[in-house]
Amino acid sequence: MPTVSRRKSITVKIGHQAVGGSSAILVQSMTNTATEDVLLTARQIEELALAGSEIVRITVNTKEAARAVPKIVEELSKRAIDVPLVGDFHYNGHILLTEYPACAEFLAKYRINPGNVGQGSKHDENFRRMVEVALKWVKPVRIGVNWGSLDQQLLSRMMDENAKKKNPSDAHAVLLEAIVESALQSAALAESYGLPSDRIVLSAKVSEVPDLIDVYNRLAQRCQYPLHLGLTEAGMSTKGIVASTAALSVLLLSGIGDTIRVSLTPQSGGDRRQEVLVCQQILQSLGLRSFLPQVTACPGCGRTTSTFFQQLAERIEEHVQIQRQEWQKNFIGVENLKVAVMGCIVNGPGESKQANIGISLPGTGEEPRAPVYVDGQHVKTLSGPTLFQEFISLIDNYVEKNYARKSDESEEPVGKRNER
Amino acid sequence: MPTVSRRKSITVKIGHQAVGGSSAILVQSMTNTATEDVLLTARQIEELALAGSEIVRITVNTKEAARAVPKIVEELSKRAIDVPLVGDFHYNGHILLTEYPACAEFLAKYRINPGNVGQGSKHDENFRRMVEVALKWVKPVRIGVNWGSLDQQLLSRMMDENAKKKNPSDAHAVLLEAIVESALQSAALAESYGLPSDRIVLSAKVSEVPDLIDVYNRLAQRCQYPLHLGLTEAGMSTKGIVASTAALSVLLLSGIGDTIRVSLTPQSGGDRRQEVLVCQQILQSLGLRSFLPQVTACPGCGRTTSTFFQQLAERIEEHVQIQRQEWQKNFIGVENLKVAVMGCIVNGPGESKQANIGISLPGTGEEPRAPVYVDGQHVKTLSGPTLFQEFISLIDNYVEKNYARKSDESEEPVGKRNER
Repeated sequence: MPTVSRRKSITVKIGHQAVGGSSAILVQSMTNTATEDVLLTARQIEELALAGSEIVRITVNTKEAARAVPKIVEELSKRAIDVPLVGDFHYNGHILLTEYPACAEFLAKYRINPGNVGQGSKHDENFRRMVEVALKWVKPVRIGVNWGSLDQQLLSRMMDENAKKKNPSDAHAVLLEAIVESALQSAALAESYGLPSDRIVLSAKVSEVPDLIDVYNRLAQRCQYPLHLGLTEAGMSTKGIVASTAALSVLLLSGIGDTIRVSLTPQSGGDRRQEVLVCQQILQSLGLRSFLPQVTACPGCGRTTSTFFQQLAERIEEHVQIQRQEWQKNFIGVENLKVAVMGCIVNGPGESKQANIGISLPGTGEEPRAPVYVDGQHVKTLSGPTLFQEFISLIDNYVEKNYARKSDESEEPVGKRNER
Repeated sequence: MPTVSRRKSITVKIGHQAVGGSSAILVQSMTNTATEDVLLTARQIEELALAGSEIVRITVNTKEAARAVPKIVEELSKRAIDVPLVGDFHYNGHILLTEYPACAEFLAKYRINPGNVGQGSKHDENFRRMVEVALKWVKPVRIGVNWGSLDQQLLSRMMDENAKKKNPSDAHAVLLEAIVESALQSAALAESYGLPSDRIVLSAKVSEVPDLIDVYNRLAQRCQYPLHLGLTEAGMSTKGIVASTAALSVLLLSGIGDTIRVSLTPQSGGDRRQEVLVCQQILQSLGLRSFLPQVTACPGCGRTTSTFFQQLAERIEEHVQIQRQEWQKNFIGVENLKVAVMGCIVNGPGESKQANIGISLPGTGEEPRAPVYVDGQHVKTLSGPTLFQEFISLIDNYVEKNYARKSDESEEPVGKRNER
């Protein structure tokens, strides 16, 4: 297994969570409810936190939204949800954060986009006002650059300087460098206003995978702030998942990234929690963290023509999904469980032996018997109509027998539970 | 953009396709119909080829399957589908390939799994028989190792040798090395029987991402054969897509991999073509190849609370999907088209300018007007109930105007079209 040598970074506290240093790489998400709607927003935050979002961001775009923030935190506290909330500010953050002190107080972090804090002399003034609020309330900030809203003054200046060079770079290279510079210069500016370096997180999001890898490699080399990773505007369903996974995997395996978000455009009526699940799956696939029991299943081929195999894989996957929350409430380490469901003799027994518990179903024309392996040992052979139920019982028994029961830790609020 | 320095490899011809060397990284898939069922299998191969699978593998597991192969090729030829077919052999390949010469003749490549060609002295004998068929019909082979069916004699021998060492490695490290050795030793054996090195492709599939990266890095360093990449037994839906994308992206960006497959367990009744689409999306996300117009869409947040934005993104995505085949039949390079659909003023105009054609929808409380950008220039502002239709017309016009029309190339069979 390739060892990941993680980039050295400063540890930044965000509420009760820690980002950077030797802390676990955290999963973040963002709501898409109107922040003014306290109940709706609190409900979505709860859902995201229960799904495993360890930090949740909400837009704070209006006075009503700013007024809603303390009420949202109160509502969450009633629901025993203690997840740090990040306020996402654009254009008017300096006003909202100063005019609504309770908003500033109840947020765990402020996201500042240096591309839209104001033009000309207003830029530094507004930026300074936001940093001063962070100083007053002892909060960290994320300086979150996005190429869709890049500081146009900085970009023009860098384009001009480039044009004067003997061998000018192409415009795209200057754009990427301007994104990096916007983040680094803004961090230096924040420090010049007195914000300590252990209260700054950086991000610099672009929407193309190779660009994102490029930008974060530059950032990683030129600062020690923890980095929040995300491919912006990734898009819908498969496209969004593939592009985000590609970019984040390459960066994470090269040791870059202290917290991640996957920005998926949901189908209308789609489930916002998907972005949390994809983050978890990325980290778990890379062997960086464990979140949920994994089902290894073969893709099937002409040897596994009965739909029985697909149905069984599906039902077992479902069972694991359903049981998961219950298991994780009660058993320590059950997120490391590996179940294999294999469709024929070719790789079935081999792959099943590598799992904690695996079943090798008969392919077309094979004897209708399914050996079950537990920790590499053949323990039983199943067949007939009770096969599914028996295999499920074997999984449940395996969990009971092999993972220690938790004491009463499950009484803790959700955010705290996630910290481990 | 990080330049990918591709590992040097030998070019191997597979039917009319070329793998390795400076050839494009090819997309493969595998059927899950019973090969004996000629019509069903031909129909699925056609579907996969039309979706963009440039090589299709079918299991050849029985005498009936071997007899079906020439009929499948004939059926495909009637449908003007000229995609190279690979026969997947296990246990009885030496028998089927010698007893059914038409099967051997009509396949474009044989996949040999050195883990199940036979035990003891039978192993080399059976393997030799398969290689001799490849020599006779001038066909390439893929030596396809899978840890679920690893050569157990080789593994035991290596485990024994390791145990005798002063500082033995852990068992997992020996397992991974045995997978690599099985591929390399089998390739050497095939060459010793007279198979030229430009008729050998290697693969060594495991089901864990870090292991796959490790195994392929070793293979890449120790041979010049082209490498077929795939995470085996990746699993269902999101898990399968994320794990496959993670592994393949890291390898492809480090220059390793000449052809890829994504092994997804389909939902029952699911669409087998998904594995092709995921392969294409991986290659396109990494900037290695272009297959289909891309829709960049923001994930929405509390600023984009109307469902209008999600619906529009969805409808535009749908339109692009539907038009895609028509466009690609008629226009050269349309697969490079980038459309952006953005939900508010924050990153909307910026991201839209980076696309070929982009629309920045109004967020909550913004003026209900949507500026449209074409190649970075603001060309129009849309509003009202005709917005969707007008934007769609703008996309269609953009395609008409900016991509050259193909002549009558679209009369070529599908496999040939894919070659470009």
